[in-house]
Amino acid sequence: MSWNSFGRLFRFTTWGESHGPAIGVVVDGCPPGLALDEAHVQRFLDQRRPGTGKNVSPRQEPDRVRILSGLYEGRTTGTPIAMMIENVDQRSKDYAGLPPRPGHADAAYDAKYGFRDPRGGGRASARETAMRVAAGAVARLVIPEVTVTARVAEIGGEADPERWESLLDEARGHQDSLGAIIECVAEGAAAGWGAPVYAKLDADLAAAVMGINAVKGVEIGEGFAAGRASGRASLPLMQASGIDGGIATGHPIRLRAAFKPTSSIGIGGRHDPCVGIRGAPVVEAMVALVLADHKLLHRGQTGGESR
Amino acid sequence: MSWNSFGRLFRFTTWGESHGPAIGVVVDGCPPGLALDEAHVQRFLDQRRPGTGKNVSPRQEPDRVRILSGLYEGRTTGTPIAMMIENVDQRSKDYAGLPPRPGHADAAYDAKYGFRDPRGGGRASARETAMRVAAGAVARLVIPEVTVTARVAEIGGEADPERWESLLDEARGHQDSLGAIIECVAEGAAAGWGAPVYAKLDADLAAAVMGINAVKGVEIGEGFAAGRASGRASLPLMQASGIDGGIATGHPIRLRAAFKPTSSIGIGGRHDPCVGIRGAPVVEAMVALVLADHKLLHRGQTGGESR
Amino acid sequence: MSWNSFGRLFRFTTWGESHGPAIGVVVDGCPPGLALDEAHVQRFLDQRRPGTGKNVSPRQEPDRVRILSGLYEGRTTGTPIAMMIENVDQRSKDYAGLPPRPGHADAAYDAKYGFRDPRGGGRASARETAMRVAAGAVARLVIPEVTVTARVAEIGGEADPERWESLLDEARGHQDSLGAIIECVAEGAAAGWGAPVYAKLDADLAAAVMGINAVKGVEIGEGFAAGRASGRASLPLMQASGIDGGIATGHPIRLRAAFKPTSSIGIGGRHDPCVGIRGAPVVEAMVALVLADHKLLHRGQTGGESR
Amino acid sequence: MSWNSFGRLFRFTTWGESHGPAIGVVVDGCPPGLALDEAHVQRFLDQRRPGTGKNVSPRQEPDRVRILSGLYEGRTTGTPIAMMIENVDQRSKDYAGLPPRPGHADAAYDAKYGFRDPRGGGRASARETAMRVAAGAVARLVIPEVTVTARVAEIGGEADPERWESLLDEARGHQDSLGAIIECVAEGAAAGWGAPVYAKLDADLAAAVMGINAVKGVEIGEGFAAGRASGRASLPLMQASGIDGGIATGHPIRLRAAFKPTSSIGIGGRHDPCVGIRGAPVVEAMVALVLADHKLLHRGQTGGESR
Repeated sequence: MSWNSFGRLFRFTTWGESHGPAIGVVVDGCPPGLALDEAHVQRFLDQRRPGTGKNVSPRQEPDRVRILSGLYEGRTTGTPIAMMIENVDQRSKDYAGLPPRPGHADAAYDAKYGFRDPRGGGRASARETAMRVAAGAVARLVIPEVTVTARVAEIGGEADPERWESLLDEARGHQDSLGAIIECVAEGAAAGWGAPVYAKLDADLAAAVMGINAVKGVEIGEGFAAGRASGRASLPLMQASGIDGGIATGHPIRLRAAFKPTSSIGIGGRHDPCVGIRGAPVVEAMVALVLADHKLLHRGQTGGESR
Repeated sequence: MSWNSFGRLFRFTTWGESHGPAIGVVVDGCPPGLALDEAHVQRFLDQRRPGTGKNVSPRQEPDRVRILSGLYEGRTTGTPIAMMIENVDQRSKDYAGLPPRPGHADAAYDAKYGFRDPRGGGRASARETAMRVAAGAVARLVIPEVTVTARVAEIGGEADPERWESLLDEARGHQDSLGAIIECVAEGAAAGWGAPVYAKLDADLAAAVMGINAVKGVEIGEGFAAGRASGRASLPLMQASGIDGGIATGHPIRLRAAFKPTSSIGIGGRHDPCVGIRGAPVVEAMVALVLADHKLLHRGQTGGESR
Repeated sequence: MSWNSFGRLFRFTTWGESHGPAIGVVVDGCPPGLALDEAHVQRFLDQRRPGTGKNVSPRQEPDRVRILSGLYEGRTTGTPIAMMIENVDQRSKDYAGLPPRPGHADAAYDAKYGFRDPRGGGRASARETAMRVAAGAVARLVIPEVTVTARVAEIGGEADPERWESLLDEARGHQDSLGAIIECVAEGAAAGWGAPVYAKLDADLAAAVMGINAVKGVEIGEGFAAGRASGRASLPLMQASGIDGGIATGHPIRLRAAFKPTSSIGIGGRHDPCVGIRGAPVVEAMVALVLADHKLLHRGQTGGESR
Repeated sequence: MSWNSFGRLFRFTTWGESHGPAIGVVVDGCPPGLALDEAHVQRFLDQRRPGTGKNVSPRQEPDRVRILSGLYEGRTTGTPIAMMIENVDQRSKDYAGLPPRPGHADAAYDAKYGFRDPRGGGRASARETAMRVAAGAVARLVIPEVTVTARVAEIGGEADPERWESLLDEARGHQDSLGAIIECVAEGAAAGWGAPVYAKLDADLAAAVMGINAVKGVEIGEGFAAGRASGRASLPLMQASGIDGGIATGHPIRLRAAFKPTSSIGIGGRHDPCVGIRGAPVVEAMVALVLADHKLLHRGQTGGESR
């Protein structure tokens, strides 16, 4: 089963393989009248672009986005917003004839679909996440009152940023890779966004973030620490988590995502020693997308006022 | 926004407040011809029933389930299966006039809906999870080849079961409560269930489990440990996680959920010192529900054979 | 595949067989704070009840509805509203051992599900529509500014009401049955409800109405007459149809549904000579349900103001 | 609210304005391993292309489709299939500054979105239907056992094809336009496709066809004639309609759609005197899309065998 859409009222659908002619996204459900241009989207894409530092993959992907629909004179019209990036540096020959790579989804794809595009990971490529970032850039316009900020909290278990550079150099030297923890805070989400049972804001955020390539764990608020605490100790902390019973409280929403180490060990010089570093903008985008959706959903049912 | 359904092809919708006349669930999308009776569902409900030990809430809830539709001569007919439990021990007077309780969803409900049923948590009550367990009992019939087993892995940060009894006694004595970690293993899910981008099996599991009351964190496979590891160290472990690129590999699927400590500190003698203990059957149910859905989805697209 | 839910934001799910213990509906997505009681729902159910005239089936079904959830002190809480009617006059013995009846869905069910509840049509029974009427009664509370009125326009091809009584007597005498055309007008739907491409208001109305048992045709505005007209002749009429490009214009919305004659010819004294007569309240209900959904959807995207 | 997707398991999302840079569609849920190339899609697009006769609009749109994703070595991979057509003959200046046109959706758009792309109808343009035809070409690969054929049955109320040419010439001479009735037959759909309550095959077909621009009425089987008949007279006919209780019987499925006359009277030389003529391939496409979806849904629930 293929399922390439996300969201309820503010929805997006991505398409494209990392080594096909292009990748793209269609954002549907965006309200009309919002100012949007390619430069706005490009700014967010550039944050996640590979080739901008020695700790991220050196492929040169300009990632130049085009907006193909949904705009008139610089404003959204309420119709679907299609965005596309052409793939210019594909080098699929690097991958030709490779057997399924351990730790990649290759074997799982074989099991599911019977055959598989062997070029560079296909849909499971991290490149697909560029389109989530593009969609997230549109989502931010829907929630201008919210700031969503993700940052690296740990690399290889190390929380002190001063140690990260040497850890990454060391990993690169050994053709090894490192996991990372990304922390994201959303401030400004109105009390009342969310739902109490099956569209809980925290459940939707968990799905959004767990669906990012390489993510293996998600925490809301205190997360696993709460699972190891006593009520008296953790109660004050829990009130600060930003979500209660699936519904935003109006306080900052905090979550953390665990990115596993890169799987492409030894495939050559083109891998990231720590994919989690590039994960931060994707986490931000997904959180923005979920919040935009819940803002519209809340408005649909209640007219949108917090009471 | 209210959203009380879960699933894509195998779907269920729950209804009912903990202190209204009844709670219920409608399971839709169940294939025809499966043997089902109330005793099968009741067996799973009894596992989560309060009042069966000193460490769980002493309310006496018979939780006697009735199946109201979808059966003919002991077999499912392919039509919706409605199940209902009447609420017999409601004691709503215990709650009347109480202000919003810290750590409960009460204030969030107020913000969302403007007013709120003050009796015992309404929809956010743990009681709603009984219906997920009932739905999960039906889901298990759809995936007879799969065994789903959840167990308590930690209580209050303690992994040694021999210490739990005294920890719980101590917490009860201090009117305190403890978090818990629940671990769940599903064996027998066929390689190929899942989807590579937005209906990833791990993302759906994360949403299902994070949507359980009191859950604050979810890990698939190595989880946060992978976020703190190096690739060389963790690669063998990752291959054993059971899901790769959103798709089941055919190996056992492992996940863990962090339950925060009970919030109802000091509300009287009726609280659980550790809600996580009752969480295990709910985690099992949600995992079974997600797997049943993905089995049907996989069959829909590919005919269902692993290739 | 079983699919027993309808709607996007304002959704409902029906369950129950005509000869099982009960039938019911869960309405999800209803805004909070609306005054609702069983009497309001019962009033609409009584309009479609059989046994209230010689031209409708003489079964005595009290159809006494109970509301089991979603209310607190007479107002909706924003949580799911479960309603149930117990089946008291089932007489399933009348049907036992009957072969599949021509013109009923029996043979189609056999093809789909392999076996079938032989008692009185199961889910395909007209009785299921009682729950749509109950859900529709809730939908009306969401759109108090709209009046939805359906009436019989033709019976057996005859548009003059003075002729209907004798036509029906004649059909009953011959154990024959007659088709009917039902016309429905909704006044007060705001300009802007609907969507331009795939959630067109007219497409959703068509699905809602075509999904009623025995309906074989749906017209919006001029309908088939427009298909036989010239533009100059029909343009003024089209502007009055109430929907343009999938979006409500603010003018009254008009539609017509064709109900085929009853299939149960000769099954005994219990059939309606013209099921279409009972169809009018069901058409009204479905139209109200679609409009309530679109009101919420429109508010979700735009804040709800017509501009 | 914007909603530009259609389908449950076999889904598609269209995007693009008639006078923007391109239009496109993303088809999601297509099974893997099906042979597909651009020529196959192009063949169906060419059937609906304007400029191929004097009775259809003389714009020269090459409608050259590109497939941008979802293929590997000529076969579908199970990932989303993105298709795009660049708009080369836009002439938006023809439309600049025009007031809302009566009979178009312009005024409704204004009411909904507050402002509107004034160039050529935007999303409501008949050009959007090209992408439904492209998606339909993919759908046909999913149901190779089914033939779907639509034809013009009436033009301006005239059922005799020999009269159509002169009627159209006359209308063109008077800058008038004519409605049409399109008839579609699908042969080969297996008994069992469909669902008995809210995903009825006939209800889904009604929504699909009523959602086509200019369609004002839909009939399944006998349609409105059944609404005017007696049971004895119509029973044999009803058995031949191909759908019973929402489920395919295995017999040919027959439906009819009423297209209203073109609204663009007097806008210049570029209008079709009868848009219904171009509607036939779109009806075919939508029917194929619904059937492909229901085939997958049926397989999902039951394994797909008719029993």
